[in-house]
Amino acid sequence: MREVSKSDALKFYKEQGNEYKVELIENLEDGSITFCDHDTFTDLCRGGHIPNTGIVKAIKILSVAGAYWRGDENKPQLTRVYGISFPKQKDLTEYLELLEEAKKRDHRKLGKELELFTFSQKVGQGLPLWLPKGAALKERLEQFLKKAQKKAGYEMVVTPHIGQKELYVTSGHYAKYGEDSFQPIHTPKEDEEFLLKPMNCPHHCEIYNTRPFSYKELPKRYAEFGTVYRYEQSGELHGLTRVRGFTQDDAHIFCTPDQLDQEFKEVIDLSLYVLGSLGFEDFTAQVSVRDLDSPEKYIGSVENWEKAEQAIINAAKEKGLDFVIESGEAAFYGPKLDFMVKDALGRQWQLGTIQVDYNLPERFELTYKGSDNELHRPVMIHRAPFGSMERFIALLLEHTGGNFPLWLIPDQAILLPVSEKHEKYAEKVLKSLENNEIRALVDRRNETVGKKIREAEMNKIPFMLIVGENDESSNTVSVRRHGGEDLGAISVEAFTDLVSKEINSTLKSFKN
Amino acid sequence: MREVSKSDALKFYKEQGNEYKVELIENLEDGSITFCDHDTFTDLCRGGHIPNTGIVKAIKILSVAGAYWRGDENKPQLTRVYGISFPKQKDLTEYLELLEEAKKRDHRKLGKELELFTFSQKVGQGLPLWLPKGAALKERLEQFLKKAQKKAGYEMVVTPHIGQKELYVTSGHYAKYGEDSFQPIHTPKEDEEFLLKPMNCPHHCEIYNTRPFSYKELPKRYAEFGTVYRYEQSGELHGLTRVRGFTQDDAHIFCTPDQLDQEFKEVIDLSLYVLGSLGFEDFTAQVSVRDLDSPEKYIGSVENWEKAEQAIINAAKEKGLDFVIESGEAAFYGPKLDFMVKDALGRQWQLGTIQVDYNLPERFELTYKGSDNELHRPVMIHRAPFGSMERFIALLLEHTGGNFPLWLIPDQAILLPVSEKHEKYAEKVLKSLENNEIRALVDRRNETVGKKIREAEMNKIPFMLIVGENDESSNTVSVRRHGGEDLGAISVEAFTDLVSKEINSTLKSFKN
Repeated sequence: MREVSKSDALKFYKEQGNEYKVELIENLEDGSITFCDHDTFTDLCRGGHIPNTGIVKAIKILSVAGAYWRGDENKPQLTRVYGISFPKQKDLTEYLELLEEAKKRDHRKLGKELELFTFSQKVGQGLPLWLPKGAALKERLEQFLKKAQKKAGYEMVVTPHIGQKELYVTSGHYAKYGEDSFQPIHTPKEDEEFLLKPMNCPHHCEIYNTRPFSYKELPKRYAEFGTVYRYEQSGELHGLTRVRGFTQDDAHIFCTPDQLDQEFKEVIDLSLYVLGSLGFEDFTAQVSVRDLDSPEKYIGSVENWEKAEQAIINAAKEKGLDFVIESGEAAFYGPKLDFMVKDALGRQWQLGTIQVDYNLPERFELTYKGSDNELHRPVMIHRAPFGSMERFIALLLEHTGGNFPLWLIPDQAILLPVSEKHEKYAEKVLKSLENNEIRALVDRRNETVGKKIREAEMNKIPFMLIVGENDESSNTVSVRRHGGEDLGAISVEAFTDLVSKEINSTLKSFKN
Repeated sequence: MREVSKSDALKFYKEQGNEYKVELIENLEDGSITFCDHDTFTDLCRGGHIPNTGIVKAIKILSVAGAYWRGDENKPQLTRVYGISFPKQKDLTEYLELLEEAKKRDHRKLGKELELFTFSQKVGQGLPLWLPKGAALKERLEQFLKKAQKKAGYEMVVTPHIGQKELYVTSGHYAKYGEDSFQPIHTPKEDEEFLLKPMNCPHHCEIYNTRPFSYKELPKRYAEFGTVYRYEQSGELHGLTRVRGFTQDDAHIFCTPDQLDQEFKEVIDLSLYVLGSLGFEDFTAQVSVRDLDSPEKYIGSVENWEKAEQAIINAAKEKGLDFVIESGEAAFYGPKLDFMVKDALGRQWQLGTIQVDYNLPERFELTYKGSDNELHRPVMIHRAPFGSMERFIALLLEHTGGNFPLWLIPDQAILLPVSEKHEKYAEKVLKSLENNEIRALVDRRNETVGKKIREAEMNKIPFMLIVGENDESSNTVSVRRHGGEDLGAISVEAFTDLVSKEINSTLKSFKN
């Protein structure tokens, strides 16, 4: 490695006729130019090189792509080579297998194959359209959470997808995010400005403000599957994980400071119930608290912050969570707990969040009448066990490779008549399954059973019910599990029992 | 009555010192001024007067209000007197009773009293916020329709609340409504324009366009409870009947022209099922067809129009609808059928609509492969039995005065312990009712049973279950119906049966 002057560097590359390096050097400050001499060539480089190529043990070119010089489509196109290297072949092989598996499980690919969702250039990038199977799956997930929330004392509300700009000025969101968001919506005849709602909390504060509350009526727990819109640059969009519109399984709990402890525990219970019912066993939690050296950064009294942080830590301990405490990671408005979930490929996803908020109750002047007959500020908890329905379904697709839990999967069983002759019997079985709330369909196509099985496998249908002569005469179905296991010929009732039993083993009801 | 010249008229009123009349006359054209002479005064007037006050038989001043001169708040305030007169006292009395009843049933008043919905100045005018009881009621209505729609072969989809401006240029909505609508939403960094969706059809067309369809797969019936936003001037807003955001119980059926007949009949069946389950018995239908003298006004072939109009008329006849045919009332894109419903006060509401559309399939280039292996255009049916959930709930409130059908009403029963001693028993009964899916609550306040009954009456709760000493010892509840009927002491099981029976008598399932 050697330092060279700007003029020498320019001379060197001009002689080589390398206009790209010349352009790069022209934009560098004089005196900061380093050359690196190799056996057969010299390059403009500040290092980070290995001493010799002999130490490269396992290498793989991953892809080759055209790229415009400096990302400008009016400039010439160069070739960009992507490669990876590991110190051992075994590590490289494992990594490549993981890549392969991740590609197979890519939720964008599976979402298309399983006909769950789509995007339309005309509707707009980053705005998912839920196809029938996906919409039903999303609704099932929502109903599942609604049921648990009802038991946990939540009340559902519904609020509009826009709000006056003033609402977000009050909440403080406009000052913070206004310029980088979808811009205000004007009305044709009046001097009004609306914004697409980026979150549901200001609306829920206004619902709380509808009437006065006594401390005896708290906590109030307002829940909504609220679709929110947030601008993302088109280059940042990615399937369902980075979108411009998504549905939060949102809720806001308004409680007294003394109730925080208990509420936090109950929200953790609900979150653990959600994760468990969906087959996530490997997760940790992160508790974000104040930076004690900068008290000026936070809103709310020190006493309340101590109470809240202690409430979160106590709750996390009592519920046996594997958690870390991060100082200085709290938002200015309150401490929080986030769940980090590992998927089947070992990748970490940030999921549900539980946040304490002292700010919005202040800004929206929320009150309750205490036992002292005076008005007090309630504390607010924001929480969303799924986080975003879209992102959660993406995670679930990649975690399960499309083999959703039986209670959730779009089609639980498919009937495969071995010939047209048995279609009528298949229809009869279908009716009986439907009466038992099993989601099934009949493959009526004029194809071989072999081909029908292969396609049902691809469509990730958990049970294939083959029906032929023997089944019809003995009132049975020949059951083949996804993956190949043969369960033999069993009665329709026995199959119905089998499905119920399997569902009940993963899907318990919340707080029996 | 006599014509006067402008100068004479001005002179007359200037002498009287009536600056308002002077201003009016100054703005009139010369030669168009009429005076009307009465016994005791002369007024600027073009007639429409009765010959003498003797023929006024029944008169009532309805209200007196301050009004700025010419509606300008910088001008002086005058007094405006509202009155009404009928030829007979009996007619006036009836009208006043109707007004009184309508006022009591005003959905804005009932919605507040029953805590169903609210509006917030901060969120914005015309944007309803659904409170817990209202949100649950809305969800029950939606689930009711979803269940029927599932049986009728509909598939639910979910689409975003915005779409690129381009989408509405394609659909033609932008050219027609763009300027009078909520204005486009810009993004901060890219040259993009989005619109709040004023209807769901363009999104559903894009869902249909996701993959090719064969004629064997049609009809496709996509349904969505889609919240749409349409600008209305603030002065036009009215409770839930005239809003800026509302949820349509929307669906679009894509079918072959030959399937139109059958589809139309099935949509009428569904609409009649919806009206019947909600207690509307008095309704008529209006069939809007082409103006045969102006064929140039309509898109689509004459052959298809004939087919569609005939399909609608046949269906209306076959289903025994009381209908009228209105020539020239069809939209340019297709004929339609609207239901007109009379509420309990005899007022007519336009409800659900069924419309044939040849335009959007053309504009979105929708196709299916026919039995001839060629591509054809499907026909589209737009339909919404409720129309708008908001408007429908308003109608239902005014029709029933808040006494919703038992299956729909927020609280079906309230338990009234005669003293604190019986609260535990009341809780036990509550649990048992909840297990039987009866929505009930306990009034635990330290008030007399009399007061509790009065409030339960006001809250329109259908059954009051009074529990005291005798009830507890004999495991019964003393049932009082809303309105006063005493059903005596019966067992909890008997009460549960009573509720189920009443529900099943109005709420049949669709197409058993």
